[in-house]
This record gives sequence, structure tokens and C-alpha cells, in this order.
Amino acid sequence: MPTEAPTVADLDEKSLLARIFPRLGTPIALLGPGDDAAVIAAEDGRTVISIDTLVQDADFRLLWPSGYRTSGFDVGWKCAAQNLSDINAMGAVPTSLVVSLTLPGSTEVAWVEDLADGLAAAIHVLGATECSVVGGDLGRGREIVVTAAVTGSLQGRTPVLRSGARPGDIVAVDGSLGRAAGGLAVLESHEDYAALIADPTAENLALLELATSQCRPRPPLASGPRAAESGATAMLDISDGLVRDAGRIASASGVAIELNAAAVARHAEPLRAAASRLGADPLDWVLGGGEDHGLLACFPADSELPAGFELIGEVRDGAGVTVGGQSPQTIGWDHFGG
Amino acid sequence: MPTEAPTVADLDEKSLLARIFPRLGTPIALLGPGDDAAVIAAEDGRTVISIDTLVQDADFRLLWPSGYRTSGFDVGWKCAAQNLSDINAMGAVPTSLVVSLTLPGSTEVAWVEDLADGLAAAIHVLGATECSVVGGDLGRGREIVVTAAVTGSLQGRTPVLRSGARPGDIVAVDGSLGRAAGGLAVLESHEDYAALIADPTAENLALLELATSQCRPRPPLASGPRAAESGATAMLDISDGLVRDAGRIASASGVAIELNAAAVARHAEPLRAAASRLGADPLDWVLGGGEDHGLLACFPADSELPAGFELIGEVRDGAGVTVGGQSPQTIGWDHFGG
Repeated sequence: MPTEAPTVADLDEKSLLARIFPRLGTPIALLGPGDDAAVIAAEDGRTVISIDTLVQDADFRLLWPSGYRTSGFDVGWKCAAQNLSDINAMGAVPTSLVVSLTLPGSTEVAWVEDLADGLAAAIHVLGATECSVVGGDLGRGREIVVTAAVTGSLQGRTPVLRSGARPGDIVAVDGSLGRAAGGLAVLESHEDYAALIADPTAENLALLELATSQCRPRPPLASGPRAAESGATAMLDISDGLVRDAGRIASASGVAIELNAAAVARHAEPLRAAASRLGADPLDWVLGGGEDHGLLACFPADSELPAGFELIGEVRDGAGVTVGGQSPQTIGWDHFGG
Repeated sequence: MPTEAPTVADLDEKSLLARIFPRLGTPIALLGPGDDAAVIAAEDGRTVISIDTLVQDADFRLLWPSGYRTSGFDVGWKCAAQNLSDINAMGAVPTSLVVSLTLPGSTEVAWVEDLADGLAAAIHVLGATECSVVGGDLGRGREIVVTAAVTGSLQGRTPVLRSGARPGDIVAVDGSLGRAAGGLAVLESHEDYAALIADPTAENLALLELATSQCRPRPPLASGPRAAESGATAMLDISDGLVRDAGRIASASGVAIELNAAAVARHAEPLRAAASRLGADPLDWVLGGGEDHGLLACFPADSELPAGFELIGEVRDGAGVTVGGQSPQTIGWDHFGG
């Protein structure tokens, strides 16, 4: 980075906040930023809450092997998207984000402004129309750490847990599978990102679109409440991979989940050319890749699936997850160990 | 640290969570940890929310010049205390914490367990009887970053903002002033912490107690709601120093705040011996030191101050903060710049 660009070390906290807040739009809150805490409406007397963090070099690289530079916009978008998705997965509607930024002094102010733009853009584009950033915290650290806590409103609905799946239920997904994992493979590859842009063949564009899926995931925010209203018995967002996350429902519900091999293959098929070019198996992406933040939900057998959901399996007696009757070779990743 | 002690790199996420959750007690929530999000009660249809972060080497050192080693317990306590304090400062009662831990793989598991104990202890000892940890996030990083978001309930009260002070109001504080700053000076000094413990003279004990004030602050949690009920016109918690925080009320309210020199001196007096030994001015600690997380509040002139509060100044026409009519030389610190 050119040394003449202003960095956060050049600004006091108040000045940096003055650069950030105007980019976040008018807060939708009973009391917005500026006091010790914000106040948000909790219309049905309940508030859904979750927290999620992105860490430089663990959750994203500032510079990938492919040459792609993660923008502040990407990090802001992803931070918002993955937090909003946790509210969606409960059948709730997001109502606020509070965001804590830990930044090296060398971080360019423009990068931080871009992060604020990414937060606001994700909230807007993903359709979280009742949500805004209502507060935050700024501090210094050796690496970039962005944490957001998110609240949501159930609007009178019963929250959909992981533990309610029953044998005989059908299993459905809404959202992409394996695209974010494919994008991670593109970013981590020695494909030259700039060359892909310079030569926009259909195949190159497909790689670029996968990378965008990794950097700017698009959880289907309307679908969580819709699934709750349609009687979903269990639900979560696929953040750690289809098999691992299906296993979480299976474990919490005390059931087995069988994923339909043909349905899984339909998700793998459009990824085949990209995977082949990168020397990967698209089934690994579909079964093991997280971060698309689609929804995995179970419904009673006689349900009409809500718009956006497609059938991908069924709930059975037993334990664990199978794909076409087989034990999957691929599992999602884990932050620690493994 | 001895290399044989298990570290977070030795455990997967699930195993580490299994070490943490039992230490946090039974969650007080409509839905506790284990799903994509928790659900808490918001009895009056509003939720107060804030977020605050502690970063290794910015907000605490693992090993101080005095030889004191910051325990996980200290970090957990301080994380909870400073977050609970933000809710207190609105006149609300804390209802939940969600906590995100970013940890180097080399962090000992015992240190993380100790952090969970510190969170639970602060919630209990500070009297946040309606609050518990309801969720969290774990991730890897190069340094320890602990972020909590906190929610609160106003229980029908009007939130007390920074902006409501009016000329003629009286200014009062509840909680210690300058003790956490004195403790920071002890920890940063070349006093030998182990030697202070080994030789528990009254003077040495005083230094140790200051250090404890820095590591384990005790915000007066009952006092925020009490101040709100007593008609406080403006309030905040003193996190960045009396003068700086008084200046925030003055600025937000469009008024001047005069702090009574004798009242300030009364807070400095018991710190004089310790400050003298460390070559510091106790007035600097009282006026400029933050992190005690006491409350600074304004009340109408004819108010009877609620229990715990003592008069420290008055609100006047004008702008800025004076002490005994003089411009203070000392100001609080700022995370960035300065």
C-alpha cells in the first residue's frame, strides 16, 4: 500500500467514526449510535441474538495466492451476511448489527470506509430491510478482526431449532451449495485473478463468479421466516458444509439424514468444469464446503416446500448422515484441530 | 508456559466448547446456546445493545513489566464488566452476553477455562442476576481478541442518554475514580508484583488493590436503573476518564460541566501514597484515568441523589469541562491517534 494514503493511525477514534457512520445509512432503531448502547424494538417481547467473527488470515487473506486482494467491502459484506444468516436460520428477521473493528494502525482509512460500505450494501442487497448498524467499537490490534453481533425479531413465530427433525420428514435446501468452496479454491489457486478478468471467457467468468460467492455470500434472507411459517421442524444455515451441518441436525434431533445422491449431483454438475480446471472434485465442494450460508431445513413429509427450497433428502431413524446410502468421505472443516 | 499443557490447537471446536459452557452456568434465556442464535426475553418490547472488545497488548498485556501475568479470569471478568457497564449506563438491566473468542493455537485450554470462569464470576459478583452468556463464537488468530455484545432491558424505563443535561443540573458520580488508572500504573511499573505479595504491608496491599481495580473493575450495576428512576437527565459510564467522559455529556447536551475541585481532591487523596511511590500525580489518575466504569450522571438541581451517588459538580451554560473553574490539563486517552 502506498504510504501516503491515510491510515487509522493518522486519525483519532472520533474522526474515524465520522468517516464510518455516514456510510451506514440512517439507523433503524429506537436509539441509534452515540450513547453507551443502542435501543432496538423487540416487537413480540423476544430478541434473537448471535455473534460471529472474521479474522485476517484465518477467515480471509488480504492477498490471496491468485493475486486477489480482499477489499474492505468484501469483509464488511461477509461479516454482515454471515451474521444475518444466523438470524435467518432461526426463522427470524434481522433487526440490528453492532460491529467491533480491531485494526492494525497501518490499515488504510479507505479500506475501513469500504468495509462500512460493504456492511451497508449487504444489509440492503440481501433485503434486511428492518436492520441497520446501531453501534460498534474500534480498537487496535496486530491483525484485522471484525466481529458483529446481530439481533432479530421472530415476529410472533416459533424459532426453528436444530433439534426438531423427526423420522419421515423431508430435507430441503435453499441457496447455493459448494459455490463458496469453489471460490475459495479459485482464490487459493495459482490462477492469476487479474488474467481471469482480462480474458473474460465463459470459463473464466465462472471462476470469477465462484470467487465472488466466497467473498460476498448471499444467504436467502426471506426464506428463513418463510420456512418457519411453513412448519419447518429443524433448520440451520450451511456455514460449515452440507454433511457437517446436516450432521448437526441429525445429532441434535436424534435422527439420521439421508441425502439424495442425484440431488447432490445436480448441485455438483455446474461446478464440474471449474473444479476440473483446479484439479478438484465438485462433490467435495458441495458436500464439504461451507460459507454459502444457504438454509438446510426439515419439513413434515406432506409439506409443500416454500418457494426457494428444493428437496435434497429425508429424515430416518438412526444417526449420522448418508449420501445415497453411503457414508460420505468428505466432511466440513473445523476452526480448531482436525 | 510449559509445552505439555493442552492448548486450543489440541482440541476441536466442539471439545473446546464442552470445556467452556459448563463453567457459564445455566443460561437465563428463552433459548440458550446450541442453535444458530439464542432467544432472550425483551419484556417491554425493547432491547438495549452494545459491543466491546479487549485486545491483547492493546487493552491488556499477558505479562506486565511488574511481572503480573493477566489471567484468563481477569480477561473474562473485564470483558463482562465493561459490557455490563454499558447497559447500566443506559439505566437498563443486563439480560445477555454473546462472546466471541479469537485465540492463538498456543493458548492453554486452562487459560480459556479460566476466562469462562471470569465471565461467570463477574456476572454473579456484580449482581447481573438476569444475565447469562447465551452464545458465542470461537476462532483462531495471532493474538487474543475477546469481544462481547451485551443486551439489556429497560423494564419500562426511559433510557438515559448523554444529551439530556441542562444548565442548573447537578453532576454526580457513583463508583471509584482513578483506581483502575492507578492499577495500570502499578502493572506498568517496575514494582515487582511477586514481591508486593510476599511483603503485604499496608502500602503494598494498597498497590495490589489498585492492580485488582484495573484487572477486575466493579461497575455499580444497580445504580444505573436507580439513577434512571431518580430522574437522571444524562448519564454514561466513565470508561475513558472523568474529564473526557464529562466532556462527552457536555458536548452531547450543549452545556458546560464544572467539576468541584474539592470533590475531585477527595478522590485523589487516598491515592496519594501509591501515586507518590510510582512518581505519579493522583489527580491525573482521577481526572484522566478510565476503566473504573463508575457512573457519571446529571440530575435536576432539586434532586435527592440516589444511594451510591455523590455530588461532584454542576451543569452550566457554555461548553467544555472545568475543574474548580480551571481548564483541566489532563484528558483521557484515545484508542487511535493522539
